[in-house]
Amino acid sequence: MTIAEKILAAHSGHAQVVPGQLIECKTDWVLCHEITTPAALRMLEERGMDRVFNPDQIVAVPDHSVPAMNIKAAQMYQKLKSWVKEKGIKHFYDVGRGGIAHVVLENTGLIKPGQTLVSGDSHTCNAGALGCFATGVGSTDLAGAIYAGRVWFKVPETMLIRVTGKMQPGVTPKDLVLEVIKRIGADGANYQVMEWVGDTIDNLDMEGRYTLTNMAIEAGGKTGIVAVDDTTRAYLAERGVNPGDYTEYTSDADARYRVIIDLDASAVEPTVAYPHIPSNGRVAGSDRIAVTHAYVGSCTNGRIGDLRDVARILKGRKVAEGVQMIVVPATQLIWKQAASEGLLEIFVDAGASVSYPSCGACLGMHSGVLGPDDVCISSTNRNFVGRMGDPTAAIYLASPATVAASAVSGFISDPREYNGSIEAAD
Amino acid sequence: MTIAEKILAAHSGHAQVVPGQLIECKTDWVLCHEITTPAALRMLEERGMDRVFNPDQIVAVPDHSVPAMNIKAAQMYQKLKSWVKEKGIKHFYDVGRGGIAHVVLENTGLIKPGQTLVSGDSHTCNAGALGCFATGVGSTDLAGAIYAGRVWFKVPETMLIRVTGKMQPGVTPKDLVLEVIKRIGADGANYQVMEWVGDTIDNLDMEGRYTLTNMAIEAGGKTGIVAVDDTTRAYLAERGVNPGDYTEYTSDADARYRVIIDLDASAVEPTVAYPHIPSNGRVAGSDRIAVTHAYVGSCTNGRIGDLRDVARILKGRKVAEGVQMIVVPATQLIWKQAASEGLLEIFVDAGASVSYPSCGACLGMHSGVLGPDDVCISSTNRNFVGRMGDPTAAIYLASPATVAASAVSGFISDPREYNGSIEAAD
Repeated sequence: MTIAEKILAAHSGHAQVVPGQLIECKTDWVLCHEITTPAALRMLEERGMDRVFNPDQIVAVPDHSVPAMNIKAAQMYQKLKSWVKEKGIKHFYDVGRGGIAHVVLENTGLIKPGQTLVSGDSHTCNAGALGCFATGVGSTDLAGAIYAGRVWFKVPETMLIRVTGKMQPGVTPKDLVLEVIKRIGADGANYQVMEWVGDTIDNLDMEGRYTLTNMAIEAGGKTGIVAVDDTTRAYLAERGVNPGDYTEYTSDADARYRVIIDLDASAVEPTVAYPHIPSNGRVAGSDRIAVTHAYVGSCTNGRIGDLRDVARILKGRKVAEGVQMIVVPATQLIWKQAASEGLLEIFVDAGASVSYPSCGACLGMHSGVLGPDDVCISSTNRNFVGRMGDPTAAIYLASPATVAASAVSGFISDPREYNGSIEAAD
Repeated sequence: MTIAEKILAAHSGHAQVVPGQLIECKTDWVLCHEITTPAALRMLEERGMDRVFNPDQIVAVPDHSVPAMNIKAAQMYQKLKSWVKEKGIKHFYDVGRGGIAHVVLENTGLIKPGQTLVSGDSHTCNAGALGCFATGVGSTDLAGAIYAGRVWFKVPETMLIRVTGKMQPGVTPKDLVLEVIKRIGADGANYQVMEWVGDTIDNLDMEGRYTLTNMAIEAGGKTGIVAVDDTTRAYLAERGVNPGDYTEYTSDADARYRVIIDLDASAVEPTVAYPHIPSNGRVAGSDRIAVTHAYVGSCTNGRIGDLRDVARILKGRKVAEGVQMIVVPATQLIWKQAASEGLLEIFVDAGASVSYPSCGACLGMHSGVLGPDDVCISSTNRNFVGRMGDPTAAIYLASPATVAASAVSGFISDPREYNGSIEAAD
C-alpha cells in the first residue's frame, strides 16, 4: 500500500484498502473557517443534529473575510465565534491570534503524521506535507464530519512524483509544482494522491513541502503527501510533538501507483502560470508583460521563507511606479517573525503595503481585489477567470521571488536577474 | 478680523471680509481621493469641462477603499489613477506610498499656513492645525475647484475655544475635543470656525492639534484652526518649509467671535462619546460596557503618538478574549516609524491585528466592519448609527489610550488604571 492507503485503512477499520473502495473514515481533525462552516452548521441545525463529535478535535480559524469587509462577512464571523463558544470548541484562533487557517494549523502541533483531516476548503491538502491525509470537502461532508467525526471516501489512486537534483538559485518549490502541473495538466491528478519523493524533496524544508502539497488541488489531486523524515520530526519536535505521539507510514516497495512522474529539479526554471489556468506555465520573463499588481501571500506562499525571498529582492529597491504591491504574512506568528527580522520595514520602504494575515485578495474577497484589465503577478494558487476580482483581469502565478522581481521592474521578470541578500544591501 | 477671515480676504481679493459675506475664494490646494473625486470628474466630463486648474496644486491620495475590497472600489481607484496620469497631477501618493489623505498631506510640506485647501471629504478641516483654512466640500464644489481653482464660500463666524491648564496624565487632546463637543453639542459650531487658543494648546504638539481641528466637523464646524507658533514653525522646518515660504495670520485683538468657550484642561477626564452622536460624552469607565471590537486608527487618531499611547498600555498585556482589536497606522511613514520603534510587534504580541493604512472600518468600508449588535470602542470621529457597519452596532468614541485599556479589560475602561511605558515593561 501507499502512505495514503495505509492511513485510510487504519482510519476505516480495514487491514487493507484498494483504490476505488468506498470507506467510512474517521477524522482526527476537522478544520473550520467562517466561509463554509456556517452553511454546514445550518444543515445540522435544520435537521436537529446540532452537535459536534468532539469539541477537542475541531480547530476553528476565521481567515477568509476577516477583519470583516462588509456586514455579511461580520455575520459569518459572528456565527463561527458563537458556535465555538456554545460547543466549547477547544482550538479557536480568533482574529489577531491566528491567520490563514492552513498555515495556522501547521504551527499548532495539533495535526500529526498518520492522521486524517478534513475541512470545507480545497487547500486542506496543504497539511499532507506532514505525512497525514488531509483533504477539502464540501459543506455537506463537512456537516457530517462535524456531527460524526467521519466522512465517506472513495480510496484514491496515488501518483508518485520523483524529484531529483539540485534546484538552481532563484528556483523554488513553487516553480517545481508549477512545472509538474504544467506537465500533467490542471486535471492531471484528478482524484489522486500526489506523493512527492526524491532527494530534492528530502532536501526541502517543511515550508517548501507545504507549497508542494498545498497545490495538489490545482492538478485536481485529492491531496498531496510527503513521507515523514528527520526534517519532519525536527519540525514537529520544535512544536512539542514527539515521535511517540504519532504514526509514521511509508509506502511499500510494491505499492501500486497510477503513474510515476520523474522531474529533474536542476532543469526547472522560474515558472509563471499564465492566465487562466495553473497548468499554463512558461519561463518567467519570456514575454514583456506589464503588471499593475504584485501580490505575495496565501496558504501557498505566505510563510517566513517566502517573505525572506521577497525581502532579499526588495531590499534597497523600489516597487515600480504604477504597481500596487501587497504583502500578506500568512499568520500573526509569521507577521511577528517578519517584523522582528526587519522584513516588513523593507517591504514598506520599497513601497509595498503590508496587510494583516488573511486570504484577502487571493480569492478576490478584499484587501487588493483586481479591477477591469488589471494584471497581477501573484504568489497564490489559482488564476481562473475572476478569481481575484474582475473577470477581465489577468492573473499570473509565480514564486514570491518572481513576484518581487516583477514588482520592482514593473514587468513579469526572472528573479535570477535580481540577486540580492537581506544582509548584503545593508 | 480672525485668522480665518484674514485668509479668506487674502484669497478673494478683499481687504476685509465679514461673516455672512459671499466670496469667491482661490484654492491653493485641492485634495482628491478615490471616493468623491470620480463623481466630480464625471460632472466635468459630462459638461466638456474636463481639465484641471493646475496639476501642481492638486494632491491625489487613494485612501478609503484601498487596497480594493471589491471590484467597484478597484474601478474608483483606477479612475483616480488614470486621471492623475492623464492630467499630470504632480503630487500622487499611490497605495503603498501614502495612507489616509489628511495625514499624508500633513507630512508633505505642501500645505502651508495662510493657505486654503478644499477636498471632497469632511475631515479636511484637519489641516487647520497648521494655521490654514481647510474645509470639506461636496462633489459639485470639488468639481469647480478642480476646474477653476476657486470655490464660493459664505464667510463663517468664528468660535473661540480657550483651553488653559495642564491635562491630567492619561488625558489626551481627543478627550479635550470630545469634552468641547459634549458641551456645545454636535451642531454647536454649525458653519463656524473653531479657533483654539490658550496655554494648553500652546503646549500641544502638532499631532495633538490635528486631533482637535480634525474633529471640528463633528460639532458642525466649517473648520478648525490654530495660529502658527514656534511648534508649527519647527514642524514645518522639519518638512523643508521655512517661514519665508508662508504667511502667518493672527486674530486681531478686536476680532469678533460668535462665542467664546473656556475650558479648564486640568478638569477634563478621559472621555467616551456614547452612541450615537459624538456629543454624548461621559467619563471613561462610568459604566460596565463589554466590547467586541477595539479600533485604533483614522485621520483623527492614527498618528505615531497615538500608537505610542496604545503600545504603552498593551506592552506585556493581552487583548481580552473575544475582543477583536485592529490598529491602523494612518500612513506608510507612520507605519514604518511604528515598526522601527517596535510598536507593531507589541500590538501583534498582544493579539491585535495591524492593518495597512486606510480609512477602513472608520466608515464601515472594510477591514473591520461591525456586525449586528457588535460593540466597538474606537479612536475614530463619528459614532452615528451604521457608521462602522451594521445599524444595530454600538460605537463608543475615545482616545487611543482608552481604546487600548478597554481592549485589555474587555470593558470600556479608564486608561489611568492601565499605566505603563513602552520601556518599563521590557
